[in-house]
Amino acid sequence: MSEARAFAEGADETQEAIMQATYAALCKHGYADLTIQRIADEFPKSKSLLYHHYGGKDELLLDFLECMLDWFEDRIPVRPDVGAEDRLSAILDYWFAAALPDEYRDFTRAIVELRAQAAHDPAYRAHFTRSDRFFRDYIVRVIRDGIEEGVFRDVDPERAATYLQTLIIGVMTQRVTTDEDENVVKMVRTEYGSYVETCLRSPEASG
Amino acid sequence: MSEARAFAEGADETQEAIMQATYAALCKHGYADLTIQRIADEFPKSKSLLYHHYGGKDELLLDFLECMLDWFEDRIPVRPDVGAEDRLSAILDYWFAAALPDEYRDFTRAIVELRAQAAHDPAYRAHFTRSDRFFRDYIVRVIRDGIEEGVFRDVDPERAATYLQTLIIGVMTQRVTTDEDENVVKMVRTEYGSYVETCLRSPEASG
Repeated sequence: MSEARAFAEGADETQEAIMQATYAALCKHGYADLTIQRIADEFPKSKSLLYHHYGGKDELLLDFLECMLDWFEDRIPVRPDVGAEDRLSAILDYWFAAALPDEYRDFTRAIVELRAQAAHDPAYRAHFTRSDRFFRDYIVRVIRDGIEEGVFRDVDPERAATYLQTLIIGVMTQRVTTDEDENVVKMVRTEYGSYVETCLRSPEASG
Repeated sequence: MSEARAFAEGADETQEAIMQATYAALCKHGYADLTIQRIADEFPKSKSLLYHHYGGKDELLLDFLECMLDWFEDRIPVRPDVGAEDRLSAILDYWFAAALPDEYRDFTRAIVELRAQAAHDPAYRAHFTRSDRFFRDYIVRVIRDGIEEGVFRDVDPERAATYLQTLIIGVMTQRVTTDEDENVVKMVRTEYGSYVETCLRSPEASG
């Protein structure tokens, strides 16, 4: 997931180095075994700089998540020149890819663990509420554009987007918490394809 | 979630008391803040009995999860006298209920946290693989029966069941990790309803 590693490039140099170190340590150790010391081990600059910035691992991780989301908000392409069907396919190719590169698998593990912190920590919950809202709005825009282009039916874009996002969260979770992920993802993609054909695609567009 | 609390009844008396104490402590503190001491605080018998049984909190929690799954395996009703459509509706009523009672919400939080342990702990991953397999097989049976009854189309039961299970896991996760759960669940249920109407229900049955 090169985007996730690249996100730090926009920040100032120290901040960027902290974010890169956090990303590397998170992929390597996961949430439960992560410590500020292990992030410091990935940090090329003075360790005291890192301890000076943050009081604890959750403070640092929340900053990391916000920084990553800001990056996505600035960079995720709207691509008005690309048709809505192709943009939807790109979303499915990204989230429902059958096999995951190792780095992305490690990062997905970490994100599933970080999201689980939201079950009891309001600061994580606020982050994932904002983050889900942002990615859902992105899908809403794709569906709304598809309706305007006449390739999608006149569905409720918010509802259709929420549905897809829930599937994506379910897939991410299953990928890293069970041993059967690849089959699961393939089946979900096929079945979501049936839904798209019959519930989302305009009968005219289906030709 | 009275089933989850009742599951311990089949075990022997000490085992049952340990499981009840674990359930209560898990709902109260969640995974991250759970300690053997906090489980012992809910345990009416000799604390040393509890320390004698288990080396650490994860050993106890894995035993708790297995014990709960055994209970479901023994008790979940097959109900061959009830039609497949009604059995599917019962699954949706259970998992996609708009509002959650407090106790069930606390338990859902705990399960989402426990599942996240599977991202890095093979013992948790083995449990959730087995657990997902069991609940998926239950849905497979409902769909297969519906095809035989002629109320569902000739779909791939395994694929349709995996799809629903992925949605359920997505909904469980969103319910407790964001602040927007109720709307999300309503929208997912409505959209899944469209999928059932057009992709799952037999055109003859829809009449």
